[in-house]
Amino acid sequence: MRTGIATVCLSGTLKEKMQACAIAGFDGIEIFEQDLVTSPLGPEDVRKMAADLGLGLDLYQPFRDFDGVSPDLLKANLRRAEAKFKLMARLGMDTILVCSNVATATIDDDAVRAEQLAQLANLAGDHGVKVAYEALAWGKYVNDYEHAHRLVEMVDHPNLGTCLDSFHILSRDWDTAPIESIDAEKIFFVQVADAPKLSMDVLSWSRHYRVFPGEGQFGLAKFMGHVVRAGYTGPVSLEVFNDVFRQSDVERTAVDAMRSLIWLEEQSAKWLASTSAEAAAGNTGALRRRYPMELATLPKVNEPAGFNFAEVKADDTAQLEKLLGQLGFAFEGRHRTKDVQLWTMGQARVIINEQAAQHAEPAIAALGFDVDSPVIASARAQQLKAPVVARKVQADEEVFQGISAPDSTEIFLCQGSPDGTAAWTHEFGEGLEHPSAGATAVIDHVNLAQPWQHFDEAVLFYTSALALEPQPFAEVPSPSGLVRSQVMQTSDGAVRLVLNLAPIQQARNEARKTYQEHIAFAVEDLVATARAARDRGLEFLQIPANYYEDLDARFDLDPGFLATLQELNLLFDRDADGEFLHFYTATVGSVFFEMVERRGGYDGYGAPNAPVRHAVQYDSLHRTT
Amino acid sequence: MRTGIATVCLSGTLKEKMQACAIAGFDGIEIFEQDLVTSPLGPEDVRKMAADLGLGLDLYQPFRDFDGVSPDLLKANLRRAEAKFKLMARLGMDTILVCSNVATATIDDDAVRAEQLAQLANLAGDHGVKVAYEALAWGKYVNDYEHAHRLVEMVDHPNLGTCLDSFHILSRDWDTAPIESIDAEKIFFVQVADAPKLSMDVLSWSRHYRVFPGEGQFGLAKFMGHVVRAGYTGPVSLEVFNDVFRQSDVERTAVDAMRSLIWLEEQSAKWLASTSAEAAAGNTGALRRRYPMELATLPKVNEPAGFNFAEVKADDTAQLEKLLGQLGFAFEGRHRTKDVQLWTMGQARVIINEQAAQHAEPAIAALGFDVDSPVIASARAQQLKAPVVARKVQADEEVFQGISAPDSTEIFLCQGSPDGTAAWTHEFGEGLEHPSAGATAVIDHVNLAQPWQHFDEAVLFYTSALALEPQPFAEVPSPSGLVRSQVMQTSDGAVRLVLNLAPIQQARNEARKTYQEHIAFAVEDLVATARAARDRGLEFLQIPANYYEDLDARFDLDPGFLATLQELNLLFDRDADGEFLHFYTATVGSVFFEMVERRGGYDGYGAPNAPVRHAVQYDSLHRTT
Repeated sequence: MRTGIATVCLSGTLKEKMQACAIAGFDGIEIFEQDLVTSPLGPEDVRKMAADLGLGLDLYQPFRDFDGVSPDLLKANLRRAEAKFKLMARLGMDTILVCSNVATATIDDDAVRAEQLAQLANLAGDHGVKVAYEALAWGKYVNDYEHAHRLVEMVDHPNLGTCLDSFHILSRDWDTAPIESIDAEKIFFVQVADAPKLSMDVLSWSRHYRVFPGEGQFGLAKFMGHVVRAGYTGPVSLEVFNDVFRQSDVERTAVDAMRSLIWLEEQSAKWLASTSAEAAAGNTGALRRRYPMELATLPKVNEPAGFNFAEVKADDTAQLEKLLGQLGFAFEGRHRTKDVQLWTMGQARVIINEQAAQHAEPAIAALGFDVDSPVIASARAQQLKAPVVARKVQADEEVFQGISAPDSTEIFLCQGSPDGTAAWTHEFGEGLEHPSAGATAVIDHVNLAQPWQHFDEAVLFYTSALALEPQPFAEVPSPSGLVRSQVMQTSDGAVRLVLNLAPIQQARNEARKTYQEHIAFAVEDLVATARAARDRGLEFLQIPANYYEDLDARFDLDPGFLATLQELNLLFDRDADGEFLHFYTATVGSVFFEMVERRGGYDGYGAPNAPVRHAVQYDSLHRTT
Repeated sequence: MRTGIATVCLSGTLKEKMQACAIAGFDGIEIFEQDLVTSPLGPEDVRKMAADLGLGLDLYQPFRDFDGVSPDLLKANLRRAEAKFKLMARLGMDTILVCSNVATATIDDDAVRAEQLAQLANLAGDHGVKVAYEALAWGKYVNDYEHAHRLVEMVDHPNLGTCLDSFHILSRDWDTAPIESIDAEKIFFVQVADAPKLSMDVLSWSRHYRVFPGEGQFGLAKFMGHVVRAGYTGPVSLEVFNDVFRQSDVERTAVDAMRSLIWLEEQSAKWLASTSAEAAAGNTGALRRRYPMELATLPKVNEPAGFNFAEVKADDTAQLEKLLGQLGFAFEGRHRTKDVQLWTMGQARVIINEQAAQHAEPAIAALGFDVDSPVIASARAQQLKAPVVARKVQADEEVFQGISAPDSTEIFLCQGSPDGTAAWTHEFGEGLEHPSAGATAVIDHVNLAQPWQHFDEAVLFYTSALALEPQPFAEVPSPSGLVRSQVMQTSDGAVRLVLNLAPIQQARNEARKTYQEHIAFAVEDLVATARAARDRGLEFLQIPANYYEDLDARFDLDPGFLATLQELNLLFDRDADGEFLHFYTATVGSVFFEMVERRGGYDGYGAPNAPVRHAVQYDSLHRTT
């Protein structure tokens, strides 16, 4: 699959954008006209730079408001087009995108449109240019790709074809199956963009909220599958207008974009396989031969079986050790060659890393996941452009395959075991204490704060590299703004990651980071766990009395149970599937811990209680009461 | 008018919110339940604090999903309601908001709803509570205020009335005239919110994009006029869910909120006056007697007649002096008692202030506006809670009435004169140079960068205090993101302010501010001005050659004219009303200058050229090419 991206997706100057696209490994780019117009680089400079960078210049775009106009305007439009055709010759480009008219069209007549497009195609032919005509979702008269294609067929000129853009097609819910019957020779270009399903006017949706494939909710694999079945072999190019990507680091965004195409390629192949007669007959060779577009494959991974460990890091680890001890964790010893400690409770393993920079506050540093094959999972992640994390290992030590998540958390791909143990624990000395409580404890979920520039990137990262599934997101009120909360999890809930997008902090808060992250452990008897922790002197997050009154009003709880909850600072939730009890520790540095008990089939995270946690944490940070 | 605000409008803890509301001068507040539930303050603490702060506790809210439910659920809902009624007694509150059911209603039958609401009203009566029933715009069965009111009439109970919320009514485009026929005794509460007209689902619109009155596009004066005519005298209270306000400084936002109600009060009185028979007959006394709600009046101002001056400030002013001199400004001398210089070109006056802090880079510091009466305008601004700026004056010097805009620019209200001169210029010594060029020059517009937290606040500030009108906003692409551009101007265009909301900069840019502001001067002959400036050695913003190619493709310009534009780095635009020529200087500190020539009736700002300016400025800041 030939990969491409429009320069409008990225921040920076044309030069910065082109360099970032080359580094990310794109085959070609679309030159968004404004990026050229505002650039000090002349057309010949751009042509040479692209050649030096190994980037094809695959599409010049957009040419707007051409068709369905008055004769006078047509004349001006043809003059305008010829100027662009000449410019393209200097750039060494041969394909231009012409969008259906949104502003100046006055004649709603296919015969007139076809006649005018024929004039454009003739002119393009004279200049060796191919015109890719695209129906914008909000085109005045032409807003449906099948309509655009009918016009192309009416004109029947070798220099006129169509451009298919997934956003314009899927945002309008047009049926994508008819794509397969379009003559592949007439599909001059394919643009892809994903988007969250929003109920708003399609123009605003398109201009601000597009995302890269895998970061939204569109059925892109199916769209691409139809394109592949049509026989198309040209570029598959990203055109994503997104307010955040326009502001983010250009090289990071280009890599995120490339990852989305690699992932889409795999998903498209999967969709094709799952819907083909050959697939039903088990004949994948026939499947491959049938479609001329080559779809590269990735190393396959299943979703992780569970958390292998979580790692916290600090310069001074005393507070972390104290908290874990009070929660009932056992100190299992120090690593024989590294300055790290192992603490466990049942199957929940926490590594305390003492190798942090001087004065570094406690923070979550790494997560280990149990996978079928760390090597295959790592190969997949690396093909998906995940940065590799190297850890020094000595002879006889387990080699961890590590990658860096978009928020810089280190992700380690570990060899899972049927009984939930981890071989590497033998590298640690003997522990000092083995409390029997919590023998069945596990890491329930981990909540990571995401930088606002990399939230969508993180969703795609965990989807594509770790096979986690994004769940519908929630918005949680906090005293410093709404917190967007995106759960990524495995189908069985054994791995649950919560990505939190914190509000942009106001100046007075920026000095004192209010981004807090946590690790939650599930136990069988939370009340007993809490009592034991209290007896060990644990500092609980203090839950206001008002909360318990409200809880009682909502759930009509047994007075004894309510008193127990309040006495131990426990929070409670109930839904149709079951009940949820949980408590939080005080925060050290940017990390705190949570203990949870899931009763029945409760599958959530106590979302109604999240505002209480945020408010109390804010309060203790700001000490206003 | 009794002013109120819901705590959900503001950031921070309940205590911080209440304090900010008291400081801003609200009469009362609505307690948003979650703010109480998450607070360490008990109900009695809140009651005492409100009393100490002089704040009424006017509404407890929201109570959700009560009506149209099964008998079992009704029983649970009544139990839940009773718990809240008891809580309200401890808070000393007597009114609760009950929203129409969005989630749990299963019975769409007014008789059933009325019967259930009657049970609630009876229970409320037992506890001395008044229930204000509100139709949410997305209520499952009840989503229209007239429907909600019909239910109240059916129940006919002294403890059941209705709550009117401008958002729920205006977002659905319900006719507001029937409000006048509602019995005032049955209107228990009125909530107001404005909003930009967005085409999106009403729930998302409501939860994220509400703004304070005057910051959006709803017809709130008319809504309030009908409420006043109905005879309502209770609180008029803001309920504004806004993602930015939730994150902004709580005291600033509370003042912004209060300003919006003061402004709304005036606008409502105006609307009433303009639509009443008494007004037609000139009998304002009758008008005032007729409606029991008292509507306070503000000192009246007309829109400003023009800019009186613009002031730039720096520690080292050499670069500013050089730029102004090269543009053709004359140095008119130094102030007799202050370290400021006066530079003029025609009627455009620029003050260079040398009293900046050490190492302060050049920046726009103040703007002067010609008003009919500085004292009246200042009185109005101060009643609208604008912070006063004090300037030291000596005997015989003009006293400037100064206020501080939301972005900290100082705004001075100056005595206008019919011939455009300013009396205070006599306080300056004799000038050195009086070039005849540009005798008719004026300040055309000033472009100010707005902090993201205070953009809506700025719109209301200039609307209410300076009588400028917001125009439809534009979004301009720049290499570091979309720039939202909001023009505020007088009807004759004599004063034009452009408020720019810059994208949130990525980390690597934050060190080097890319927020740039500018002052634009209009001249009669831009080409001559540019030539003279070039001869004086002015450093123009360098416009790429690609721009002129594109210009030619778009406008088919005379080759000689195009060559002149390119030779002088001039930008060009044309629309149906006329033509626009302009150029920019290089930036010093955070400020640059623009010279413009308006031909014919051109009323814009060369918006198609703004991306070019942003790209070239970014490029020179980042030096990537």
